[in-house]
Amino acid sequence: MNKPLILAFDVFGTVVDWHGSIVAELHQLYPHVDGNAFALAWRAGYQPAMQRVRSGELGWTRIDDLHRLILNGLLPDHGLEHLNESQRQHLNRVWHRLNPWPDVVQGLGLLKQQFTICTLSNGNMGLLANMAKQAGLPWDCVLSAEVFRAYKPDPATYLGVASTFDVAPEQVMLVAAHQDDLAAARTCGLQTAYIERPHEFGTAQPKDISPCVDNTWHASNFVELAALLGQPQ
Amino acid sequence: MNKPLILAFDVFGTVVDWHGSIVAELHQLYPHVDGNAFALAWRAGYQPAMQRVRSGELGWTRIDDLHRLILNGLLPDHGLEHLNESQRQHLNRVWHRLNPWPDVVQGLGLLKQQFTICTLSNGNMGLLANMAKQAGLPWDCVLSAEVFRAYKPDPATYLGVASTFDVAPEQVMLVAAHQDDLAAARTCGLQTAYIERPHEFGTAQPKDISPCVDNTWHASNFVELAALLGQPQ
Repeated sequence: MNKPLILAFDVFGTVVDWHGSIVAELHQLYPHVDGNAFALAWRAGYQPAMQRVRSGELGWTRIDDLHRLILNGLLPDHGLEHLNESQRQHLNRVWHRLNPWPDVVQGLGLLKQQFTICTLSNGNMGLLANMAKQAGLPWDCVLSAEVFRAYKPDPATYLGVASTFDVAPEQVMLVAAHQDDLAAARTCGLQTAYIERPHEFGTAQPKDISPCVDNTWHASNFVELAALLGQPQ
Repeated sequence: MNKPLILAFDVFGTVVDWHGSIVAELHQLYPHVDGNAFALAWRAGYQPAMQRVRSGELGWTRIDDLHRLILNGLLPDHGLEHLNESQRQHLNRVWHRLNPWPDVVQGLGLLKQQFTICTLSNGNMGLLANMAKQAGLPWDCVLSAEVFRAYKPDPATYLGVASTFDVAPEQVMLVAAHQDDLAAARTCGLQTAYIERPHEFGTAQPKDISPCVDNTWHASNFVELAALLGQPQ
């Protein structure tokens, strides 16, 4: 298989450490709260919230607004029901301030020399652009479910990247730490690279990072991926 | 008026020198062609082509495809009707390879330290991303008419930038070398900065660069704009 032209990156969990970032920020703002439980509960609300949009119960909704809906439901369970509107808005924007994994900035810099690198995230454009600016992520282009008005794993998202750059699906590679995302991309004809993020859910809950033979590449991190892709084929 | 948070840039003519770049590429590829007349004719077809989309005669069409429609009509007038499909595709992609004005890369670097900088162009996402990669334009985010499914001067484009970043219209400033674009943005509540590009249509056809008092700022180039905006208000 020829090398791809475009690398499209999943973001939450693959590029940034949502669990660790939320735990750290909660620890600073509200030290009495169990940050680990809070982060896991917030993230656990994500797929069901998107499902409400997919099913038509909600119209098209940005992830910022879905995060806020979930947050409002979560606060009473964690002794934070007293937060005022401005505090809730600030906390909700933690998703714009997530920290990249330690290899990411260096790895993206290397990959950018060889490929066009873009996001393909269910996160909204503003969230992804703010995150990139804060974390120094050197994207050539920010792409989002918001542009395609469909959440992953809808084929419109994976095929939308190919269409945006006017290339064939096999000239795009999805880079992600989630096998289900990669499987959906593969169904659309994209190449796939799995990235090991064993502590996506925290160090107390290591996740399965076994290779799947169906992926084009498997790498422990972005710097290793750049080295693998830099070798002659 | 408070300083804006987001600077949105018009691209063709404001960031890149479409006339000079097309003349230079034609001179290299097809030296017998009058590059100045060719470039002017290609660009002159731009507004009428978008009007065919606005009127509903054509469905939503990317600028790459409009450029190609115009190009096909133009080739016979310039002795280039013999170009084959691959040569036409290559020539059409000159719009992805346009060169920035000399102040642009330095100026955007300075402005990026103070503001979120994004494109707001009728050019399609792939065109703008390829151009940015080739020319080293350090956008925080590439935004396009393609995202909003409307061409400038449709209010959906200017207000779309504010909505994308979840800010008020007056927190966005359009930066452009075209008074009509700026006037339309102002109607939507955006701040405006006019940039002098006297040779947008070539050195033989200098254009009027008179200030308009309705603009928030007027600068000769991006480096000067960065200096003006960097002063305490």
